[in-house]
Amino acid sequence: MKTLEEIGQSAKKAAVYLNKMTTNEKNRVLLLVAEELEKQAATILEENQKDVEKAKENQMSLALIDRLSLDEGKIKGISEGIRQVVALEDPIGEVLSIKVRPNGLRIGQKRVPLGVIGIIFESRPNVTADAFSLCFKTGNAVILRGGSDAIYSNLAITNVIRAALKKENVPEGAVTLLEDTSRETATKLMKLNEYVDVLIPRGGKGLIQSVVNNATVPVIETGTGNCHVYVDSYADLAMATKVIVNAKTQRLGTCNTCESLVVHKQVAKEFIPMITEALTQKNVEIRGDEYARSIDQRIVPATEEDYKTEYLDAIISLKTVDSIEEAIAHINENNTKHSEAIITSNYENSEKFLNEIDAAAVYVNASTRFTDGFEFGFGAEIGISTQKLHARGPMGLLALTTTKYIIYGDGQIRN
Amino acid sequence: MKTLEEIGQSAKKAAVYLNKMTTNEKNRVLLLVAEELEKQAATILEENQKDVEKAKENQMSLALIDRLSLDEGKIKGISEGIRQVVALEDPIGEVLSIKVRPNGLRIGQKRVPLGVIGIIFESRPNVTADAFSLCFKTGNAVILRGGSDAIYSNLAITNVIRAALKKENVPEGAVTLLEDTSRETATKLMKLNEYVDVLIPRGGKGLIQSVVNNATVPVIETGTGNCHVYVDSYADLAMATKVIVNAKTQRLGTCNTCESLVVHKQVAKEFIPMITEALTQKNVEIRGDEYARSIDQRIVPATEEDYKTEYLDAIISLKTVDSIEEAIAHINENNTKHSEAIITSNYENSEKFLNEIDAAAVYVNASTRFTDGFEFGFGAEIGISTQKLHARGPMGLLALTTTKYIIYGDGQIRN
Repeated sequence: MKTLEEIGQSAKKAAVYLNKMTTNEKNRVLLLVAEELEKQAATILEENQKDVEKAKENQMSLALIDRLSLDEGKIKGISEGIRQVVALEDPIGEVLSIKVRPNGLRIGQKRVPLGVIGIIFESRPNVTADAFSLCFKTGNAVILRGGSDAIYSNLAITNVIRAALKKENVPEGAVTLLEDTSRETATKLMKLNEYVDVLIPRGGKGLIQSVVNNATVPVIETGTGNCHVYVDSYADLAMATKVIVNAKTQRLGTCNTCESLVVHKQVAKEFIPMITEALTQKNVEIRGDEYARSIDQRIVPATEEDYKTEYLDAIISLKTVDSIEEAIAHINENNTKHSEAIITSNYENSEKFLNEIDAAAVYVNASTRFTDGFEFGFGAEIGISTQKLHARGPMGLLALTTTKYIIYGDGQIRN
Repeated sequence: MKTLEEIGQSAKKAAVYLNKMTTNEKNRVLLLVAEELEKQAATILEENQKDVEKAKENQMSLALIDRLSLDEGKIKGISEGIRQVVALEDPIGEVLSIKVRPNGLRIGQKRVPLGVIGIIFESRPNVTADAFSLCFKTGNAVILRGGSDAIYSNLAITNVIRAALKKENVPEGAVTLLEDTSRETATKLMKLNEYVDVLIPRGGKGLIQSVVNNATVPVIETGTGNCHVYVDSYADLAMATKVIVNAKTQRLGTCNTCESLVVHKQVAKEFIPMITEALTQKNVEIRGDEYARSIDQRIVPATEEDYKTEYLDAIISLKTVDSIEEAIAHINENNTKHSEAIITSNYENSEKFLNEIDAAAVYVNASTRFTDGFEFGFGAEIGISTQKLHARGPMGLLALTTTKYIIYGDGQIRN
């Protein structure tokens, strides 16, 4: 087995090669990878079965086993995803602008690959092919560290990809899966500054925190979402109900799911019974403050902890406020800077909310569920950044690039 | 003395206020700060004298004492710098684009402040006012941690700024200097994720490494520069000499100073005596490989370590190569990803160098000394980033901003 340093070296070497590939060359390789994954579905499914059996032995929850399990259809889906990446515009090589300085120097900013990207993820084998295709399209080599639960599946998929790379004479270092899934090796990867340019953790809160706490390599933090919908005193209450039911129940377990409501007291008496009825029908428990409970007894008491909780479950918190200022302060205090929405028909309040809420995505009169690379029109998504550096919000191909200044002179020197 | 948590809280609170200020309001405050710094020059100089005397007692080098010392002229310079920042365009609030999705959602990307910026720097008291003005102009609160050597000067300057803020009813938390200059407190600041959005270290290699290694807050790494000039086989040798003398000797101690030459063997016999003569006249020692030394005996032997060294001194390394490929590989292997130049009249080689060199700034036929926010036309500089995330190369006001998505809907829900 290669050491992590050797893996880093071969990734870096591959990145130099990838940086010189044209879009056509990269697309041809990606199409071959998509084809090979389908052709070798039987082998991949066989390996996947080992992971699934192990998971059953370990009495993993059915939801997790479902995430882990592959079938012919899912593999077709993975290949289809790669073909969609082929269809996307390649951002690499674009020169954003060239400006001429008074001394005649022409200074341009050119979009280039990041280099080597480390992706640390949990037990979803589809991430392997998904992350590879996005990194490869943008000329980046990738080192993948998946969970031990999916190791057979991840290795099978990576082997198919590497065999396809080899056929096309592309260095296999373009994608490496760490066979050693120990915590020590993961921590070492997080400090491999000499070879890794960026780390992207994809998974739950614990995984992300561990990467943020241990990494010396720059991290793009992807996020947990304690997302709010604020129902303003000027809200269209039917619209509010429709949006909230969607934001909460369309999918319970996603990071852009609404976890907390904030309701202006001027509309609370009318609105709270409406939303309680609609959510109760969807089996969602509402945890609210005293004022809310005095209006509708189906609401159970909320603690301060509730307002900070991303349930990822059929529960929602509810807080009543006296003003939009109180709503904004409450949200900025408790949110995870992901996605927040206001329902209002008032111009000043919509502007105030858009300006003052600190989050990656701020909505007026729409569901928080739209925070997503595909919904935003990027055609891909590597994750949703909740940090402020480099990329904020859904990340498409552009988030996997950086720029360099290119300067054309004719002998200029500095005075 | 406030605890670090209290300082973080008051900075965060101030950031909320700053985010709502108009450009006119921010400019008015900055002009008052510039004026007050001049008015209170005597007090600042008195405090600065304490630092200088302490430095002399500690037998600090003359160069460092010079950096530390203020006088009337330097304070005028600081105020003038602030007035230049006033004149710069405020990037905050700009909406980069609004795109309409098929479902009618309008998704815009708006430029907003980062929030709270931590700046850790060494003993240059001018950084205090400089960093404050750039952060303030972009609506960010700043927590400054300067070196203990300059503590009296830094405090004096910060107090003048905070008094001016107070006069204008701006929360003083907009700028805080840590009075406690202990390493423990610095390390705590690096982990203050709840309140600090970004850390920018400004200083030498040791300081930057310490921040990169200890921080859990995202860091913008500013850089050391082992910058190269490559003299291609198609170089105009007179231009090469002029550019190299400038890149090496115009200032010895800056990060964009050239520290290493790479010379194609086809021009080595003619060029090496030329450049050796020119640099020797400037008292620069050349450390080269055997082939170079066989051409000119004034060149002393170089070790492998030399090729990795940022001298910041009157020394330069020199390596001869057989091809541009070898030159590019040598540079990418040894550089610090800062600034690199090729001297050539060949189109393919200029393109190859621009494409394949991995650095923040890559030059054709110009001095590496131009890598600078002012020279690039940004009107300001907070540092030069040598990392690939967020900002790469000279950082002006834009590097102190992030974006958020603002989404205008009329009741859209996700299917």
